[in-house]
Amino acid sequence: MLKDFEYLSIRYKDEKLEILDQRRLPDIEEWMESKTPEDMITYIKQLSVRGAPLIGVAASVALFVYVRDHPDADRKTIVEVSDQLRNARPTAVNLMNNIDTMIQLSQPDQDKRDYSAEKMAELAYSIVEAEVEMCRRMSEFGAELVQQGEGILTHCNTGGVATPGMGTALGVIRAAHRAGKQIHVYVDETRPLLQGGRLTTYELEREQIPYTLICDNMAATLMAAGKIQRVLVGADRIARNGDFANKIGTYSVAVLAKYHNIPFHGVAPWSTVDPACPSGKHIPIEQRAPQEVQGASGAFGSVRWAPKDSQTFNPAFDVTPNSLITSLILDTGVYDCQSFEKYVEQIKGNLS
Amino acid sequence: MLKDFEYLSIRYKDEKLEILDQRRLPDIEEWMESKTPEDMITYIKQLSVRGAPLIGVAASVALFVYVRDHPDADRKTIVEVSDQLRNARPTAVNLMNNIDTMIQLSQPDQDKRDYSAEKMAELAYSIVEAEVEMCRRMSEFGAELVQQGEGILTHCNTGGVATPGMGTALGVIRAAHRAGKQIHVYVDETRPLLQGGRLTTYELEREQIPYTLICDNMAATLMAAGKIQRVLVGADRIARNGDFANKIGTYSVAVLAKYHNIPFHGVAPWSTVDPACPSGKHIPIEQRAPQEVQGASGAFGSVRWAPKDSQTFNPAFDVTPNSLITSLILDTGVYDCQSFEKYVEQIKGNLS
Repeated sequence: MLKDFEYLSIRYKDEKLEILDQRRLPDIEEWMESKTPEDMITYIKQLSVRGAPLIGVAASVALFVYVRDHPDADRKTIVEVSDQLRNARPTAVNLMNNIDTMIQLSQPDQDKRDYSAEKMAELAYSIVEAEVEMCRRMSEFGAELVQQGEGILTHCNTGGVATPGMGTALGVIRAAHRAGKQIHVYVDETRPLLQGGRLTTYELEREQIPYTLICDNMAATLMAAGKIQRVLVGADRIARNGDFANKIGTYSVAVLAKYHNIPFHGVAPWSTVDPACPSGKHIPIEQRAPQEVQGASGAFGSVRWAPKDSQTFNPAFDVTPNSLITSLILDTGVYDCQSFEKYVEQIKGNLS
Repeated sequence: MLKDFEYLSIRYKDEKLEILDQRRLPDIEEWMESKTPEDMITYIKQLSVRGAPLIGVAASVALFVYVRDHPDADRKTIVEVSDQLRNARPTAVNLMNNIDTMIQLSQPDQDKRDYSAEKMAELAYSIVEAEVEMCRRMSEFGAELVQQGEGILTHCNTGGVATPGMGTALGVIRAAHRAGKQIHVYVDETRPLLQGGRLTTYELEREQIPYTLICDNMAATLMAAGKIQRVLVGADRIARNGDFANKIGTYSVAVLAKYHNIPFHGVAPWSTVDPACPSGKHIPIEQRAPQEVQGASGAFGSVRWAPKDSQTFNPAFDVTPNSLITSLILDTGVYDCQSFEKYVEQIKGNLS
C-alpha cells in the first residue's frame, strides 16, 4: 500500500515504520519500530526523532500506520489521533502542516475527506517525496552562494538525520562540498543536547567533509580571527516577516555574525513557513527540564556537574529577528527578508 | 615562620600548605597537600588550583615551602625552582608578578636579595594579604555601580575559590548582595571545563544568592528579553590599552553585551595588569586538548559524545578589545579604557 522508502534516519520496509534512534549516535546505530502513534509521540518527545522536517514526515507515516492497522476506526477517532501527533512538539510547524495535509484540511467539505488507508498511504508518500525534493532544491540554491575555500559555521544538526533528504543547512554544505568548493565547516556543539557535537560531526565524517568541532562560546573568537565567512543554520518556524525560530543559540550566532559582518542564512523548506504568524514574537517557545543544563546525558552516559537543585533557564529554541538575517534559503529560492515578506503575501493572496 | 591562614580554597596550617581540589566541586570537598613545587605545578596544570589570583598566591607559598624544606639550597637552585613555578601556566600574569616579588626582581643588586626562609615567609604572607585586601577593595568599587534589582551575567568562576579573598567579579556580586541590592545572577556554564556550572553555582548556593544557570549560548536570548542589566567577568591579563584576556567565551559575551547596550566590566586586581603588554594581540593564548571539547570530564564522571577522532579548536582564553569594555574595575578604582591607559602610563612613569 505505502511504497517502501529508506533514508538516513527513517525507513518503511516490509510494512514496518522504523526510525534511527538519534539519541544513540554517533557511536551506536539502532533502528526502532514505531507500531503505534504513542510510540512515535514518545520518540519525538525523547528526541529519538528530531529535526522539524523529519518530525513532520515521521508523524504523517505514523498516522498512516494507525489507519492501516485500524480499518474500523471512525473519522472522529482518526482526527483525534492526528491531534495527538500534531501536539507532540509545539514549535515545529512542519508537523502541523503535514498533519493538516494528511487529514485534508484544505478540502472544505468534510464528507469529501478520504481517510482510507490507500489515500493516507498516497498522502504520506507524497509528503516524503516532497521533503526530499525540497532539500535537494534548497541545497542547490544555497550552494551557489558559497564561495571557494570558505569557512562555514553551523549550529545544531540540520543534516540527513534531521530530514528524509540531504538536509537543510547541512544540505547546502553537502552540495557545496560535492561541487568541489573546498569548504571547512566549524560545528557548534550546541548545548545542552549536543546535536552539533554528536550528529553533525557524525554526518560530516561519513561524507569526509573537513570540519572542526567547537564549544558554542568559541564561535566569536573564530569570527574575529577571520576563519568564518558564512553562517548557515536551519529554521523550525519562519514567520511572515522573516523572523525565525531555531535551536537555542541561533540568535547568539546571528548577533555575532552581524557584529563581524558575516553573512547569516536560515535554510529551510517552504513547509517551515507559517504565513499566519506575523512575527517571531508570536512563536511559542518550549521550556525543557533543568537536568539537561545541569549536566549532559545520552547513550554516551549521564553526568551532572551542577548542584542538584540548581535553577536553570532552558528554552529549546530562540527567535532570530529579520534584521540579523542576510537571506532565507528556501526550496523556492533565496530571499532577503523584504522580498520574503512580499513573496509570502503573494502566496497568501493566491490561496485566498 | 609563615603565619597560618585559611580561605575557601587554600590554607596554611601546622606547617602544611593545602589546596582545595577544585576539580571535585561541587559534590566533593577534598583538600590536598602540596609538599613540593612539583606537586603545585601538577595541581595548577590539572586545574585543581585555578583562577589567576589563586595560582599566583599558591605558587608563591609553594616556593616558600621549598626554601623552608631545603635550607641548603643555593640561590641558583631557588631561582630555577621559581622559574618552574612561573611556567606552570603561560597566560596568568599574577603568577609571574608574584614570583618576581618572591625572588625580589625589583632589587637590582642581586646580592641584596634575601632568599632566607624567614624572608620568603614574610613575602608570601604579604602576597596573600595583599590579594585579600585587593579583592575587598575592587568588590566595593564594583558594588557601587550595581543598581537595585539588576540581573547580572557572569562567566567562568571568579569567586572565593579563584582567589584567597572574596573574589573578583563574583566579589562584586557578593558585595552587591550583602549590600541588599536584590540582584539575580545568571551564570554561564562556561564550556568546556564548566567552571560556571560547577564552581560559581557552588559559591552562590553557599551564600544563598539567587541565580539561574544557563548554557553559554542562552545569554543572548536573556539579553534580548531584558533580563540582564550588567555583565561582570574576571580578567587573566590586562594589556596597557585595556584589552584583556579571560576565559574562552568572554569575548562572545562582550560582543553580545555591546549589541544589547548592556554595560560590560572586567574585574581584576592590579596584579593582573601587564604594563609591558601594549595590546591584546600580544597576549599568548594556550591551546588545550581535544578531549575537553569532545565531551566533559571531572570528578562527576567522564563522557564523550563526539566522534573519537574529531578535530577541535580549544583555546583556554580569548581577548576582549577595549572597544567593548565599559569599564575596568580594579582595586585602585574604576576606569574606562582611555583613563586606564593614562593611569598605566602614569604608574610606569613613576616607576621609571
